[in-house]
Amino acid sequence: MPTLAQINAAGADEFVALLAGTYEHSPWIARAAAARRPFASLAQLKHALVRAVREAPREAQLGLIRAHPELAGKAMVSQSLTAESTNEQTASGLTACSAEEFARLQQLNADYNAKFGWPFILAVRGPRGAGLTRDQIIATFERRLHSRPDLEFAECLRHIDRIAELRLNDKFGVEPALGNQVWDWCEQLAVHSDPGYLERGELTVTYLTEAHQACARQIEAWMRECGFDEARVDAVGNVVGVYHGADPSSKRLLTGSHFDTVRNGGKYDGRLGIFVPMACVQQLARAGRRLPFGLEVVGFAEEEGQRYPATFLGSGALVGGFDPAWMTQLDADGIALADAMRAAGHPATLDAIAALRRDPARYLGFVEVHIEQGPVLNEIDLPLGIVTSINGSLRYLGEVQGVASHAGTTPMDRRRDAATAVAELALYVEKRAGRVDGNSGGSCVGTVGQLEVPNGSINVVPGRCRFSLDLRSTTNPVRDALAADVRAELAAICERRGLNFTLTEIMRASAAPSAPAWQQRWERAVESLALPLHRMPSGAGHDAMKLHEAMPQAMLFVRGLNGGISHNPLESSTSDDIDLSVRAFAALLDDLAREQA
Amino acid sequence: MPTLAQINAAGADEFVALLAGTYEHSPWIARAAAARRPFASLAQLKHALVRAVREAPREAQLGLIRAHPELAGKAMVSQSLTAESTNEQTASGLTACSAEEFARLQQLNADYNAKFGWPFILAVRGPRGAGLTRDQIIATFERRLHSRPDLEFAECLRHIDRIAELRLNDKFGVEPALGNQVWDWCEQLAVHSDPGYLERGELTVTYLTEAHQACARQIEAWMRECGFDEARVDAVGNVVGVYHGADPSSKRLLTGSHFDTVRNGGKYDGRLGIFVPMACVQQLARAGRRLPFGLEVVGFAEEEGQRYPATFLGSGALVGGFDPAWMTQLDADGIALADAMRAAGHPATLDAIAALRRDPARYLGFVEVHIEQGPVLNEIDLPLGIVTSINGSLRYLGEVQGVASHAGTTPMDRRRDAATAVAELALYVEKRAGRVDGNSGGSCVGTVGQLEVPNGSINVVPGRCRFSLDLRSTTNPVRDALAADVRAELAAICERRGLNFTLTEIMRASAAPSAPAWQQRWERAVESLALPLHRMPSGAGHDAMKLHEAMPQAMLFVRGLNGGISHNPLESSTSDDIDLSVRAFAALLDDLAREQA
Repeated sequence: MPTLAQINAAGADEFVALLAGTYEHSPWIARAAAARRPFASLAQLKHALVRAVREAPREAQLGLIRAHPELAGKAMVSQSLTAESTNEQTASGLTACSAEEFARLQQLNADYNAKFGWPFILAVRGPRGAGLTRDQIIATFERRLHSRPDLEFAECLRHIDRIAELRLNDKFGVEPALGNQVWDWCEQLAVHSDPGYLERGELTVTYLTEAHQACARQIEAWMRECGFDEARVDAVGNVVGVYHGADPSSKRLLTGSHFDTVRNGGKYDGRLGIFVPMACVQQLARAGRRLPFGLEVVGFAEEEGQRYPATFLGSGALVGGFDPAWMTQLDADGIALADAMRAAGHPATLDAIAALRRDPARYLGFVEVHIEQGPVLNEIDLPLGIVTSINGSLRYLGEVQGVASHAGTTPMDRRRDAATAVAELALYVEKRAGRVDGNSGGSCVGTVGQLEVPNGSINVVPGRCRFSLDLRSTTNPVRDALAADVRAELAAICERRGLNFTLTEIMRASAAPSAPAWQQRWERAVESLALPLHRMPSGAGHDAMKLHEAMPQAMLFVRGLNGGISHNPLESSTSDDIDLSVRAFAALLDDLAREQA
Repeated sequence: MPTLAQINAAGADEFVALLAGTYEHSPWIARAAAARRPFASLAQLKHALVRAVREAPREAQLGLIRAHPELAGKAMVSQSLTAESTNEQTASGLTACSAEEFARLQQLNADYNAKFGWPFILAVRGPRGAGLTRDQIIATFERRLHSRPDLEFAECLRHIDRIAELRLNDKFGVEPALGNQVWDWCEQLAVHSDPGYLERGELTVTYLTEAHQACARQIEAWMRECGFDEARVDAVGNVVGVYHGADPSSKRLLTGSHFDTVRNGGKYDGRLGIFVPMACVQQLARAGRRLPFGLEVVGFAEEEGQRYPATFLGSGALVGGFDPAWMTQLDADGIALADAMRAAGHPATLDAIAALRRDPARYLGFVEVHIEQGPVLNEIDLPLGIVTSINGSLRYLGEVQGVASHAGTTPMDRRRDAATAVAELALYVEKRAGRVDGNSGGSCVGTVGQLEVPNGSINVVPGRCRFSLDLRSTTNPVRDALAADVRAELAAICERRGLNFTLTEIMRASAAPSAPAWQQRWERAVESLALPLHRMPSGAGHDAMKLHEAMPQAMLFVRGLNGGISHNPLESSTSDDIDLSVRAFAALLDDLAREQA
């Protein structure tokens, strides 16, 4: 087995030879990466290879894709695969296909090749490196067959990189042990799901259901196993684990995320932010090591607002943000929040909940690890990202009113078409939010997610058109400037077209910029892994938004696969990326330990 | 009472004096119209006054509007109205308001004035000249209060013109007797309505219901009363009336329109085209006059496609276009078309229906009078329009597929937003259809009438967007060029944005250009009334489209009120406009009589 030192010291030909078989029949990739040595980490080597692929001409990339065999294809049948491919296709059970599965895969191969012009590439060893099932392989194949050529081309390259990553792990004899540990916790926690979802194999854990309570007990038990000094479920159902500092009365670093899920959600949303620091505590406890500060890891009971209208019930309680009026909110079965709390064994008193409020003076700050829930890290081939701000947002519901009239008899210059007015607005939002200059350095997103001509008829000029607006930015002033421009444009469009409109603000959330010192700690942690830094806003809300009200905070994002999809069973990461996030968290602890020493 | 000869011969001051009181406190209008003399008809005088109002500066128009009293307002209470206004407000019963009605009208006056800055103007004597009820006045007031200032400004001027028209009728001692006759037939026929609609005061007459059969019997009876030589209901339910020529075996002019309605439709759509020629036959028969050709007036049983999917059942049968497969179509209650025919006493055999086919050699051609069902004549202040072509049309249903993603976390430059793509398409359709040059002389309309992001969420970038396309033009080549451009643009938008799409053609109808000789006959008929010609395409389909397959055809349009709305209870005309259409039809008959003599 080679070492990084050997790799760094080797001549170019030797370097290529040492990496032989990493990228299928494509030594040019290693040759291009050779110039980027020395590598301080395996992660850096992997990234250099990925960059070499990304920076190659498209023809070379297409050649790389085409150098791969079809899944369960002719090469497998004729036993002419590379040794690596043989291992992978055998491990995934593809060589043991039923006749029906084999026929289905041949059809998919033919359809895919006919549509895209290259073979379907899938890292069959999967995100945990353990091998997908044949059912999973066929389902993924069917899904990706419906994608767009440009998206699928990029996806094939990403799967080739993932195959290379796993082959490099084998070659260097390393395993992402901490990532696997977190992965396995996520997997095991996902056995708990609410009734009606569990039976369909869907993950749904809403506030204070039996599955939710089982999750809390499981996390608490794992915390104890990891070596936390304290682990308990608090009055709103949060699981709180404490690993004391060398001096048990020293200040604490607060961290964590939520373990509830949306309906039919993913296994990593929230939960990574509990298990990543748990893996760090496990390492510290095994080494008998104490830090100059305590570590308090909270599994927040509720963030998603699925069972009750209220959201951030868990993290809100820690900053005194629990609204007494919530106690009488009803779920879909008519159960009041207070009754749900009592049924779960909680006191359900406002005093007990008020007592959860943390004294900021006793904490250094709050950090949170979260899966990105967006496409950015996946597209730029980076496992980790540094959050600069949790975006402020504004939401509106609107309607434009024109005059419904006959589509055949109303000349174009005599129309009062409500839908074309909203079409103009949607394109304006797209352009204005995407504008780089004039945003005062803040980045924006703007979305018309709901769009409808109520009772529209094919032969009637739309008299009404309803729409929603979701506007977000890294800072409140930039968000507000965006909103003012969009509102003014809507008024101008309607004035010009002779239309009426209504626009109602239904939600306003302040931006939560990362505390610079804490953002820098995450940056140093990522740099310690020899990975490039990527700073990015968080477009989604997170528990850190709540803690932001009481103490400095900063977040670390972990790349999501499948286009970064979230709130969906396709949400995924790899144990390698998760492993890097654990190591980044450990580096942040070390950094902080040096500061506090 | 003045005569047209006096009016034409008068000095300018005398002319103004003769017309005093026509336009409230605004002699400048008569002064401006004086230069347009001589007038060959009262209609031409009315039109000259209307033009004078339209060509005045906006300030003068606003002054004219403000010269009018409020309805049931202070001037009425203090008895300081002009004599004309006093008559009108008294005739409409406004002076006999209940305290509650009076209070409601004061509130409406105040709200209207506050919104628009001028008093609400309504021709309270209504479209038949007979006086609206207080309920009708209040309902109209409430509806128009929600309009746009520019639309309402124009509507007030139109009502002032209508008030002036009624005052001129009084001044000259004329009455639109033929128009009133047609109006009253429309009113009386509207007492028949399908169950469920009748009770709500809504007009719905669908194919072969009891109300439909009652309408047929009523029309047949009126035809006999008018002096038709033959009147019968045929095998598909059409009412066919024949007024023989001097030689009963001479060729016939075919005319007519449909008497079925859409659900909750108007009283004039279709029916005008039966009653206008009936009024002409009534005049001919009273005078004992025979033409050198026969006149065959058909009340078509079905055009709207409301009860069965098939449309143009009535006129289609006359051109051999009855599809035998229609016999098994079911209505919403599961009643087959053949069974509905039998229940209505028809033989329901294909032979009987085939026998309805007309031999084109026995007909001179087909003409049809129809309410415009569009805004054009109303906006340009003309009672009649000459149809140049019934537009050809193409309809599509489409869907754009992108990638649904998180509205917060997906940067603007990484989106695959299906809705903004459709927004681009909708704006392209609007622009391309409205383009004057490059349409090879044909005029187009294009409409996205259905538009929806299925299950759209405020915080999700639209992954799908469904839409409809309705494209029409005066000629098939111009329609097809429009459709080709729209399809190409959709493909280009989706290619540029990296999206998939589907587009399915669901309807294709050929254009039916008017036969030049018949269009010219309508033009001479309108010119004989000393009215300006306005040539226009028909955007809606009509029975004439079917007859076009067998013989030359041309149509005459009658202005619709209330923005030309149709397929709606607000559909309306005036008995004065209808009277002009009867006189135009009579002029066409005279013209044709001279040709055939």
